Amino acid sequence: MSAQPTACVLVIGNEILSGKTQDTNLQFLGFELAKLGIRLAEGRVVRDEPAAIIRHVNECRREFTYVFTTGGIGPTHDDITAECVAAAFGVPLVLNADAVERLQRGGRPLNEARLKMARIPRGAELVDNPVSNAPGFRIENVFVFAGIPSIARAMFASAGPMLVTAPPILSASVDAFVREGDFAATLEHIQQRYATVEIGSYPFNRDGLFGATLVARGTDRAQLREVIDEIVAAMTALGGETKVN
Amino acid sequence: MSAQPTACVLVIGNEILSGKTQDTNLQFLGFELAKLGIRLAEGRVVRDEPAAIIRHVNECRREFTYVFTTGGIGPTHDDITAECVAAAFGVPLVLNADAVERLQRGGRPLNEARLKMARIPRGAELVDNPVSNAPGFRIENVFVFAGIPSIARAMFASAGPMLVTAPPILSASVDAFVREGDFAATLEHIQQRYATVEIGSYPFNRDGLFGATLVARGTDRAQLREVIDEIVAAMTALGGETKVN
Repeated sequence: MSAQPTACVLVIGNEILSGKTQDTNLQFLGFELAKLGIRLAEGRVVRDEPAAIIRHVNECRREFTYVFTTGGIGPTHDDITAECVAAAFGVPLVLNADAVERLQRGGRPLNEARLKMARIPRGAELVDNPVSNAPGFRIENVFVFAGIPSIARAMFASAGPMLVTAPPILSASVDAFVREGDFAATLEHIQQRYATVEIGSYPFNRDGLFGATLVARGTDRAQLREVIDEIVAAMTALGGETKVN
Repeated sequence: MSAQPTACVLVIGNEILSGKTQDTNLQFLGFELAKLGIRLAEGRVVRDEPAAIIRHVNECRREFTYVFTTGGIGPTHDDITAECVAAAFGVPLVLNADAVERLQRGGRPLNEARLKMARIPRGAELVDNPVSNAPGFRIENVFVFAGIPSIARAMFASAGPMLVTAPPILSASVDAFVREGDFAATLEHIQQRYATVEIGSYPFNRDGLFGATLVARGTDRAQLREVIDEIVAAMTALGGETKVN
């Protein structure tokens, strides 16, 4: 799976770290990227602090095929993502005429604060925001999205054509009513025989019935089916019921 | 606020990155740590890969007062957190007699897989798990918790007495029915006058009514009240209704 594109999500915002707001963008992006064959390989939640944002943008853009940031592109003083991304790339923020035109569609007076949302790192390309006009942008392999989930989702849809995709990462799963401690050795043997399938075990307790959801991920549907069949057979041999999802 | 302890949460697990599972531990920890005066300054979501886990544990334990990991301490092959934390500290994993005793309370046969949950980095101290026996642990400033939210929460409660705390980080907030673009300059002036209060602006659209929740965070309750009063006065001057939360 070494040719598979990878991604990192940088969730930017003190409100996520303070516990005020539950992030949901990372889960959404992980799920959607898998459909495009891009593996979300890491996430970081970063405070609204220039040095931290710049450092993480630079570390991650070198390590992953794509970086997606969410949050911090509004008009207020705590919205510093665009200027930090520009600093990370060593380019100035410049007023983007196309972005100004889009902001004018909002029908509100374009004061200094609103014009801030049209200042984009030099060389960046706009990412359309069909929800509220103020655009996101892409610079090299870094995509900068809003934090509000409905807008982040719309921007991801707009950015789709800019991404180099790969065969989708598929998943198959089965619920087994056997305790993890009783099937761990068996499951490990199955994993060892399928190097290109990633098998995860996620325990549950449903009304006192202990078990685990076994998830197989990979790009080869036939192989995933084989792995699930082997897991079902192994769990049955251990005396546990299974339910293929 | 430089003397304030800081923390980083490492959420470990492919299921979070794949989008299968929505993490909620980071939000919980951010919220609870603030009550103890510990600022959650960063979060990372790390895949089940030894090199990645070891690197992030080592980077973060040097940078922050505390590191909390969640996930990857069960009995299956994809549970590799304990061995990676041991590797990060350069110590062996050793069978912990106290942990073995706790696991025996579960009443299930202690096979190799279950004994894996009693293997702890040398020098680590157990963190009690009142939910399901298998303990977490602390080594130096790194706390290793389970990923299942009910267990992570119980372990955090158990770990409380091991933490050096500080005056709680308080927050106060007000909803203002003014658009961010219309109050951004005013709000920035208020922020500039209160260096030790962190003011955040989080826009909303409630049934077509645009506005923002303004959040003030800091350790001085009187000062937070002052900031909120100033924000209310400023929003009123801009013609917007407010609702103090």
